[in-house]
Amino acid sequence: MILTVTPNVAVDITYRVDRLTPGSSHRVRGIEERAGGKGVNVAAILRTLGHDPLVLGFVGAAAAGAVTAGLARGGLANELITVEGPTRRSIAVVDSSNGEATLFNEAGPRVPAAGWDDLGTRLAARLPGATALVVSGSLPPGADDEACARLVRLAAAHRVTVLVDTVGPALLEAAAAGADVVKQNADELRATTGDGDVAAAAAELTRRGARAVVVSLGAAGMAAFTPEGSWRAAPPTRLAGNPTGSGDAATAALVAGAVAGAPWPDRLRDAVALSAAAVLQPTAGLVDLRDYRRLVPQILVEERHATGLDR
Amino acid sequence: MILTVTPNVAVDITYRVDRLTPGSSHRVRGIEERAGGKGVNVAAILRTLGHDPLVLGFVGAAAAGAVTAGLARGGLANELITVEGPTRRSIAVVDSSNGEATLFNEAGPRVPAAGWDDLGTRLAARLPGATALVVSGSLPPGADDEACARLVRLAAAHRVTVLVDTVGPALLEAAAAGADVVKQNADELRATTGDGDVAAAAAELTRRGARAVVVSLGAAGMAAFTPEGSWRAAPPTRLAGNPTGSGDAATAALVAGAVAGAPWPDRLRDAVALSAAAVLQPTAGLVDLRDYRRLVPQILVEERHATGLDR
Repeated sequence: MILTVTPNVAVDITYRVDRLTPGSSHRVRGIEERAGGKGVNVAAILRTLGHDPLVLGFVGAAAAGAVTAGLARGGLANELITVEGPTRRSIAVVDSSNGEATLFNEAGPRVPAAGWDDLGTRLAARLPGATALVVSGSLPPGADDEACARLVRLAAAHRVTVLVDTVGPALLEAAAAGADVVKQNADELRATTGDGDVAAAAAELTRRGARAVVVSLGAAGMAAFTPEGSWRAAPPTRLAGNPTGSGDAATAALVAGAVAGAPWPDRLRDAVALSAAAVLQPTAGLVDLRDYRRLVPQILVEERHATGLDR
Repeated sequence: MILTVTPNVAVDITYRVDRLTPGSSHRVRGIEERAGGKGVNVAAILRTLGHDPLVLGFVGAAAAGAVTAGLARGGLANELITVEGPTRRSIAVVDSSNGEATLFNEAGPRVPAAGWDDLGTRLAARLPGATALVVSGSLPPGADDEACARLVRLAAAHRVTVLVDTVGPALLEAAAAGADVVKQNADELRATTGDGDVAAAAAELTRRGARAVVVSLGAAGMAAFTPEGSWRAAPPTRLAGNPTGSGDAATAALVAGAVAGAPWPDRLRDAVALSAAAVLQPTAGLVDLRDYRRLVPQILVEERHATGLDR
């Protein structure tokens, strides 16, 4: 079983409007709502890939029932911990005239220390039967920088592979705790490390203790910096669609590859193919495996050398 | 007691963002939530004016408890009818860099015929003790064009003054049913009647059966077309602030003036002053009566003659 922790579960709301015009009033033409947050999206993709993930994390009480009902409808087992307060919303306003999405992300409720203790207890109970742990998404307000690192150490104590996709000091601490894989997009990586060069920023994370660093380069594909070598993988052409959730599809591929013990170039190829397949879907957490299979042989994987090309 | 009907009660959510940039992702810096919908805002202002309104109407079940709790906190008695489905949301995204608000209005849940029957029964029970009825705001999806007109006839049967502020065919039918006052802003009036000239559009509504027509002209003030004459009232200067809810403040002043039997020029002066006071507030449903009292003597009221100036 693959465990996914979403520290700040959200309700993902998609609004369709005719045309987004700042300063004016818009009639919402269509509304979709689903349980979201990066770890939830990763779990949904893992399920599509044939895995049986367990969704852990925190959800604000106000709409917690709707969230867990939505997860159950999607076939996702969960042990979410309900915390007092509003359920975080993430609203994507899609402009029908050009397909462009504008996102508004709420911060979510604060999680008390007892909540983190509860999460640790649940993880400790589940880790003995787990093949991997994914910690993915933003941390709730007030979480301390060590929050992810403690989960990484707990997984390491059970010899369970752990992948972390978050930002800021929490990611630096997770790297220092020896996370097997840390994943970020290039902008996040630069913001987290303060280094403008992707390869140098990745090297900084490995120096701190991360075993491997995977960086999403947007439409240009992904790069992996690992103990076995460094690779870059690129899709054949830029795909039109909704990039929301494509990073979560990549994370799902990376953890599935880690569980299977696949070589890094294959993991990276799968991550880019699955990420590209996710772009073709209207919402996060969805892929059509036929797109994925069609794309896999089209992905170009190259071994990297320190050329400064990512600068 | 003044009865206010809000056919499509909403949760008004205000998001503060650093700067609204279409196509990008925004961290929501501040969230405010309150019960909303035009009739609810009218009731809140009436309460500030010392009246004791009763809030009637429909609310989607999902967050109905939060809505009625919010009304109670604001000292507003309600007999809202809960209908199956989501609670309508209206989201105002306020750009902190320029104060500009961008609105996203959901449609709300459908109200079954039995719901409208229930509303009629409740109104029939309350109208004998009522001094006025306000029907204000958009109709829920699927409502027939006669929905407001039936409420107008019910009030007329009890000789209760009725003011209607809605749009489209429902407003035309409410006028035909003999509403005492119909109120719209100039854009709505033009859209409802198809007539580009405000005075001609107002004449069309009185020809259909409305006793009086009040038109908001935005920062330029308001115009009233009544059996006693026509007037225009303007604030002394354009006030900076949030225009959301200023129309509801005007409605509250108009109904309060009707209940008091005030002359039309005074009603219009009060409506413009209260509307201007509402612009100074951050959210709908609020006024500071000191602003109102300070503004009243500054409002310029002129009797109107058919000059075509509104064209």
